[in-house]
Amino acid sequence: MRVFTTLLAPADARARYQAALSLAAMGSETIGLDEALDRVLAADVVAAEDLPPFDRSTVDGYAVRAADLENASDAAPAPVRLIGEVRTGEAAAHQIGPGEAVRVPTGGMLPTGADGVVMQEHTALADGTVEIRHRARPGENVLGRGEDVRTGDLVLRAGRRLRPADLGILAGLGHARVVVRLRPTVAILSGGDEIVPPDRSPGPGQVRDMNTFTLTGLVRRAGGIPVAFPILPDHLPTVQETLRRAVAAHDLILISGGSSVGERDVVADAIQSLGPPGIIVHGVAIRPGKPTVLAASGSRPIIGLPGNPASAMVIFEVFVRPILGALLGVSEDDAPGGRVLARAGRAIAAPAEREDHVRVRLDAREGDLWAHPLPGKSGLLTSMVRADGIVVVPAAGRIAEGETVEVRLVGR
Amino acid sequence: MRVFTTLLAPADARARYQAALSLAAMGSETIGLDEALDRVLAADVVAAEDLPPFDRSTVDGYAVRAADLENASDAAPAPVRLIGEVRTGEAAAHQIGPGEAVRVPTGGMLPTGADGVVMQEHTALADGTVEIRHRARPGENVLGRGEDVRTGDLVLRAGRRLRPADLGILAGLGHARVVVRLRPTVAILSGGDEIVPPDRSPGPGQVRDMNTFTLTGLVRRAGGIPVAFPILPDHLPTVQETLRRAVAAHDLILISGGSSVGERDVVADAIQSLGPPGIIVHGVAIRPGKPTVLAASGSRPIIGLPGNPASAMVIFEVFVRPILGALLGVSEDDAPGGRVLARAGRAIAAPAEREDHVRVRLDAREGDLWAHPLPGKSGLLTSMVRADGIVVVPAAGRIAEGETVEVRLVGR
Repeated sequence: MRVFTTLLAPADARARYQAALSLAAMGSETIGLDEALDRVLAADVVAAEDLPPFDRSTVDGYAVRAADLENASDAAPAPVRLIGEVRTGEAAAHQIGPGEAVRVPTGGMLPTGADGVVMQEHTALADGTVEIRHRARPGENVLGRGEDVRTGDLVLRAGRRLRPADLGILAGLGHARVVVRLRPTVAILSGGDEIVPPDRSPGPGQVRDMNTFTLTGLVRRAGGIPVAFPILPDHLPTVQETLRRAVAAHDLILISGGSSVGERDVVADAIQSLGPPGIIVHGVAIRPGKPTVLAASGSRPIIGLPGNPASAMVIFEVFVRPILGALLGVSEDDAPGGRVLARAGRAIAAPAEREDHVRVRLDAREGDLWAHPLPGKSGLLTSMVRADGIVVVPAAGRIAEGETVEVRLVGR
Repeated sequence: MRVFTTLLAPADARARYQAALSLAAMGSETIGLDEALDRVLAADVVAAEDLPPFDRSTVDGYAVRAADLENASDAAPAPVRLIGEVRTGEAAAHQIGPGEAVRVPTGGMLPTGADGVVMQEHTALADGTVEIRHRARPGENVLGRGEDVRTGDLVLRAGRRLRPADLGILAGLGHARVVVRLRPTVAILSGGDEIVPPDRSPGPGQVRDMNTFTLTGLVRRAGGIPVAFPILPDHLPTVQETLRRAVAAHDLILISGGSSVGERDVVADAIQSLGPPGIIVHGVAIRPGKPTVLAASGSRPIIGLPGNPASAMVIFEVFVRPILGALLGVSEDDAPGGRVLARAGRAIAAPAEREDHVRVRLDAREGDLWAHPLPGKSGLLTSMVRADGIVVVPAAGRIAEGETVEVRLVGR
């Protein structure tokens, strides 16, 4: 019988695991921009041209020389001579001289000599003369060539998870295709003799499989391709054979249930039988999620998660998400906004020997954001359903009511 | 020539538009749980059974009567008689009497008479007697029947966008299939004679299409099905015919570009030609995004967005997202955590007549979250690339450096 003797703190467990793994990022593929949302850039994108590619008007109006119109106002309108018009999508053919103006549409190209645009609303046109009733300033109502992106700018870094605005910039710079990381495939195994699929009624002592569904959702959101396996019985040869197939075919293996210490610790035994390095960490000083197994077969990471679905979700955040991030080469999982500051809605005390991952509900009140720990035991899945985020309290740590804490947002 | 005479404030424009539209939520469909992530529940889910369905041990150990072991400790171990074992996935056959214990695995069913479990680590077994070295409390290391969900509980409300934890609860309660809202299809039209696709080199006065890609990404993330149309020239019959096809086939129509005021306002003219109610709001007191058109053909919403992609993205947040939310019947787009509080990194002043939507970068420093307005003009797409969120400043409003502001998170 194996027992948890020295439990590592989560940060130490993660460090030891990552040192043992030496994970490489996935290979890359080239895809169309219309498929690129949320994919991870595999290489820096440097602008090969200016954006916009020419000085553009941002309004409908008249391109002018600002120097001609420094004192124009409603009370003292300044007349300028209309010498032509720029059409949308065409080169500006005119050259503007002193006292002259050219009509330009929104998005139209500024003629040579013009350095500002006066909005149509501030003008009146009569007999080829435009009365300007508003002072013009250089650069006003103009988006200058290269003002958004300049040739040579590092526009997006490798490791960026592509957002809607990024797709726009890539399109604007002519990147109709983009090189992204392959998505890791993640085998999801849910084990235990007590587990039945959700479409079956559990008999006495049985419960329905929940981990396959929570983990599938988490993997998908994190950018992996979840591959759900059928429920595994607590039968060593079956678990061994299934793990062997999963290791051969997938980039990361998650197996939940069966990892607690006991005479029938089938999962741990099966993992060890796959060959070195095997189990690297067995048991972590964390609540919930103590019976976690961090392992590998060759270079393939295998993570044994608790059977309790709420605990498995916490362990996903702490140990699985960083592995997925490394496989994807993600540069910024801790982007500002992924964590927020809030005040503790009540005092929180962590147990003496375990880092506590407390599920909280956020509530904005009187100009402050409050984090309310959800009631009930740490293994309740409904606490994850209701949670907006998680507050990490170090082992033996205490947080006073009203104290400011960092909340990692989850669920959205 | 039409001019913007009275521009409505964004909230007033939205109210007028929504009153004119009277949108109904989409119909529903029944799908498997494995496809249900991020879909919107069409009906409340009420638990038809308890979860867990029986009292379960949360550890490997011995099920006991807590009353027998109130004073057990390392110094004073209490002996109890081992009368049997519960196996994972099987009914607990024993009945525990005074001074008795039954071995239980993690997740195993508690025998009748037991009300707590002592962890194996705190015990020693010899000759059919278990020495208990730790005080036992009622309910300790037990997840009671119905402690997570009780029969009759409202587990998830209609309008909930399903998260990973929700899928777990649904699976646990036997909902292998779930009734969700149909996803609205959203026609995305990008117009303008100056626009070329991203795989073409723009000629003089031309720029590449960016809006199709930013809007496609935003629609997809918001739960709609984007349908990108080919680039539209500024040619009234073509725009009319394309809009007519889009209105017939899709739930929401977005058309960007060409909506500014001017002699060649092809988009507005084409929308009006589709029949009542036509244009409901033309121009909004917002920066960026003034030349916005809120319209409908019959009950079909049509939104004309600015050609500038950064402006179009802001208008998406203000006007399109609420419409998509109404079509999806989403109940909680403003979930806590979607907005955070931060301190302004510098003073911000809005223009006199327009609500300002200021893009900010978030930065956690010295225990505070700071919102730094991104430099440059409001139409820069790179400001959306760099933004973590948006701060809304009312027309003519001023925010002092260090003042607390609400930031709506974007991009993640």
